[in-house]
Amino acid sequence: MLVQLKEETLEENKSKDIQKKAKPYKLVEKKHDNHRTVIEVKGVLIGGPEVLALAGPCAVEGLESLRETAKVVKASGAKILRASAFKPRSSPYSFQGLGEEGLKIQRQVADELNLIIETEVMDPRDVALVEEYVDILRIGSRNMQNFDLLKEVGKCKKPVILKRGLSATIEEWLLAAEYIMAHGNHQVILCERGIRTFENATRNTLDLSAVAVAKEMTHLPVIVDPSHAAGRVDIILPLSRAAIAIGADGLLVEVHHDRENALCDGAQSLRPEDFDLLMKECSSIANSIGRKML
Amino acid sequence: MLVQLKEETLEENKSKDIQKKAKPYKLVEKKHDNHRTVIEVKGVLIGGPEVLALAGPCAVEGLESLRETAKVVKASGAKILRASAFKPRSSPYSFQGLGEEGLKIQRQVADELNLIIETEVMDPRDVALVEEYVDILRIGSRNMQNFDLLKEVGKCKKPVILKRGLSATIEEWLLAAEYIMAHGNHQVILCERGIRTFENATRNTLDLSAVAVAKEMTHLPVIVDPSHAAGRVDIILPLSRAAIAIGADGLLVEVHHDRENALCDGAQSLRPEDFDLLMKECSSIANSIGRKML
Amino acid sequence: MLVQLKEETLEENKSKDIQKKAKPYKLVEKKHDNHRTVIEVKGVLIGGPEVLALAGPCAVEGLESLRETAKVVKASGAKILRASAFKPRSSPYSFQGLGEEGLKIQRQVADELNLIIETEVMDPRDVALVEEYVDILRIGSRNMQNFDLLKEVGKCKKPVILKRGLSATIEEWLLAAEYIMAHGNHQVILCERGIRTFENATRNTLDLSAVAVAKEMTHLPVIVDPSHAAGRVDIILPLSRAAIAIGADGLLVEVHHDRENALCDGAQSLRPEDFDLLMKECSSIANSIGRKML
Amino acid sequence: MLVQLKEETLEENKSKDIQKKAKPYKLVEKKHDNHRTVIEVKGVLIGGPEVLALAGPCAVEGLESLRETAKVVKASGAKILRASAFKPRSSPYSFQGLGEEGLKIQRQVADELNLIIETEVMDPRDVALVEEYVDILRIGSRNMQNFDLLKEVGKCKKPVILKRGLSATIEEWLLAAEYIMAHGNHQVILCERGIRTFENATRNTLDLSAVAVAKEMTHLPVIVDPSHAAGRVDIILPLSRAAIAIGADGLLVEVHHDRENALCDGAQSLRPEDFDLLMKECSSIANSIGRKML
Repeated sequence: MLVQLKEETLEENKSKDIQKKAKPYKLVEKKHDNHRTVIEVKGVLIGGPEVLALAGPCAVEGLESLRETAKVVKASGAKILRASAFKPRSSPYSFQGLGEEGLKIQRQVADELNLIIETEVMDPRDVALVEEYVDILRIGSRNMQNFDLLKEVGKCKKPVILKRGLSATIEEWLLAAEYIMAHGNHQVILCERGIRTFENATRNTLDLSAVAVAKEMTHLPVIVDPSHAAGRVDIILPLSRAAIAIGADGLLVEVHHDRENALCDGAQSLRPEDFDLLMKECSSIANSIGRKML
Repeated sequence: MLVQLKEETLEENKSKDIQKKAKPYKLVEKKHDNHRTVIEVKGVLIGGPEVLALAGPCAVEGLESLRETAKVVKASGAKILRASAFKPRSSPYSFQGLGEEGLKIQRQVADELNLIIETEVMDPRDVALVEEYVDILRIGSRNMQNFDLLKEVGKCKKPVILKRGLSATIEEWLLAAEYIMAHGNHQVILCERGIRTFENATRNTLDLSAVAVAKEMTHLPVIVDPSHAAGRVDIILPLSRAAIAIGADGLLVEVHHDRENALCDGAQSLRPEDFDLLMKECSSIANSIGRKML
Repeated sequence: MLVQLKEETLEENKSKDIQKKAKPYKLVEKKHDNHRTVIEVKGVLIGGPEVLALAGPCAVEGLESLRETAKVVKASGAKILRASAFKPRSSPYSFQGLGEEGLKIQRQVADELNLIIETEVMDPRDVALVEEYVDILRIGSRNMQNFDLLKEVGKCKKPVILKRGLSATIEEWLLAAEYIMAHGNHQVILCERGIRTFENATRNTLDLSAVAVAKEMTHLPVIVDPSHAAGRVDIILPLSRAAIAIGADGLLVEVHHDRENALCDGAQSLRPEDFDLLMKECSSIANSIGRKML
Repeated sequence: MLVQLKEETLEENKSKDIQKKAKPYKLVEKKHDNHRTVIEVKGVLIGGPEVLALAGPCAVEGLESLRETAKVVKASGAKILRASAFKPRSSPYSFQGLGEEGLKIQRQVADELNLIIETEVMDPRDVALVEEYVDILRIGSRNMQNFDLLKEVGKCKKPVILKRGLSATIEEWLLAAEYIMAHGNHQVILCERGIRTFENATRNTLDLSAVAVAKEMTHLPVIVDPSHAAGRVDIILPLSRAAIAIGADGLLVEVHHDRENALCDGAQSLRPEDFDLLMKECSSIANSIGRKML
């Protein structure tokens, strides 16, 4: 008969080790249970009791089109309009975005409809330009460890959404936020958007545990992008409900008023009526945990 | 200047392809939107409007100990007692479980407290024995593609919980369920318990998208095991809320009345008071989506 | 300006930690630099200076067919014939193998051609039967942590090839070998066959580093299966050369005399002429590192 | 009894699909079997019959230190000196490199010893500066999809080493090369450096299959960085042998004349005597496949 020892394997020891390790970050660290950063943008609070929707098309395609989608997301309760003027595309032959023309369109639509606007910035040389036009800057997952870009947005006065890299550990994600904070900008919003795994039924695997873990480790607000994680429209509603239930401070959702003709990501963009339903169901979840969304 | 084509890369085409493919399974397939299998065990319905808690220690450690934990999980609202008499352990020198003695203890405690009992079966030669003692059999993630074991439980008259393999695709998970159904047992309950990824902050990465995807593909009930996925106790409550919000039909949770002295998985077992809080919070989420838990 | 500390992140500390940890295994451990187990089967040495080829079809399909492939692999220099009579298939509707009839065919062909035969065993109840017919038993990757099966082959008198699980760490692989050795059978041959990752260009990702790492950690022979890892025939030759160069003690390769009509895995089976070329090229690599193959 | 169909699952169909798909790239594509790009730098050919060593310290630490390591790698047969003046570090508090001062040191050492020098560029604003000093530019894995950086080096006249991203598919890697070529620079050298998987025994998992697959898909030279993949010094020699055997056109290896005092990556840097042995063993492998290294 074999001797039975109460020995543990490396796998079993893993999370324990991590918790004991000295933390390599400082500014992002949650110092006590009630330590939370709330970021204010034109009267809207991110990271407070309200759960926010940041909704809109993948890309700015033109003035009429953005205005149309902006109206529908506003009507359903979104206060922040998402849209990209600079697009990171795997292929050099794919639509790369409208650039500064797109930023102007975003500003115009936001002003007309009294919405807050956020957009992606990819190149350190564009940071000043982008900051001029929009209210919130976004670092995409491919650029999470583009350290020169992080340093540049670290000098901005406006909030930055920092998407988690496709294969970034939570620690690396927090260290990327630390870069931004260490260069002076303390208004960082973390965004979980799916990690790359072996599973093919979804484009990426939304790691909702990472939201719960990040909430334990940092005082920064954490939002969730179910659209890029799923890559398919049929599970965005349940993923959004789960994100709110786990404690996310907001949702970054792709919505298009005419998704069949979207220039990119049509397959994962919600129709207006589905986004409206999403807002209602998520609002109900938010209420059940003592927060509000509508 | 580069010509801009609306070409898509393989990555962008991925989920679309999958949806168009001929499905390799038959019996597990959801045939229409309202197609749901509800499994009845001693008056308790799995997969119906009620969300269930299956709670208890990792392993059966002895009569007193199991009875103690059983009382606390029952008091908080669990109707099904989880516990393993046969333990799959990475090391041959780790505690391997009490075997038949454990099954007897489980039966006794279940009868005393009027609880339903579930347990893992690992060896095709033990299936008849296990079926004799418990109400629900469980196939662990390491055995999800132990096809001879699947065939054997396929001949059982009692329901089977089928945990997803650590690196099994959703399709392979459904095909494993198809094995059980093809051999005659249509009472299969799928259980998502985390997949293996690069992330080290959690033991595994709970793939909640898989619950939403499985609910689209199959009529079978789907439950979630946040304990094995997390491997750390501090995020089990938010993960459980998210699981209910996404549409899981139940939670498989490790609880121990004295976790400091648990023979295995103490680090991920909830204390009685934390489990009680979990039940209350999850009940509130269940209500907000039109289901009930308490 | 930022203070620059020489601090390291968790990621950077990872391998160092692992090397410092107490090892959870005992019998598989390499005790000194020259500690190597050499396994003898009918005069052929596995783990010695010679690098071996274990070649043949995925499945036993019939007497004529196996004999035909056996002749060609023998002609090219293989001393061990691979073929499965019991097939682990993802779908219950796929070809499941010929069972005992297949074992008889294997024995007959091996005896006619004076070859050593190896085959997979999946069910603990079949171990005695399989041991009766073949010279080497094989545990497939799906069963690497089928602990009851490991215990059963641990009682055998014949060598066991232990394939690494699709998502098993090297440590878990060695612990699975420890199970077999702890139950009495010290003739274990490890087989790397690809792990599951996000990459889709190959069926799995052949982890050749694992061969080098395993050779540092254990005295057991290590072989490589490029066929199941690649899932495509066009890179099997270079993968095989690399496997020999890194120090593998053998190759487990799928070859079929008529791959277009193979009942399974035709797409990854080598044609006879390609296998012949593989043997010549690998022999040349073997010579360059002081070993021999032909 | 179950009907047995010859149906294949998604997993089994995977690689076949990929091979049939229309290719999203154009300029990187291999048009016929003998289609190979050979890049010439100061008389040294990359992608020709000779296999090259690109060796040196992780970072430029100072003139004396770089000169010392450069001498030893040259003595062992390396023709290209690797070293980084700009360092992408996970933490903002880690050593970030010497910047332009480092570039000057590299140029001086290269000129003194008649070596070719390569270095990493991270910021599109630094490309012109870096191109002025060094012979070959390098894009690190974190920046593989930093599209503005790719476009910028696409305008350079000097060769670019493009490291594969930590979780980039081979297709995405080739599309990143396509970006560089589409903007005018056809001198791209691909570099496999390990992908992120669940395995913790190595820092990353060196994907040698990717070298074989890339060699099938593209005419560009492919080199391998075993140092960053392994993250541990004890398996770099066998990994290097395997890389040559599979067909790599070069090795990018970290060597330090005094690794105990290296400012970064000391744990994975080879000692001079180990690098010398590596060159001899790899040369022997190269000869056995009809190439040369020394």
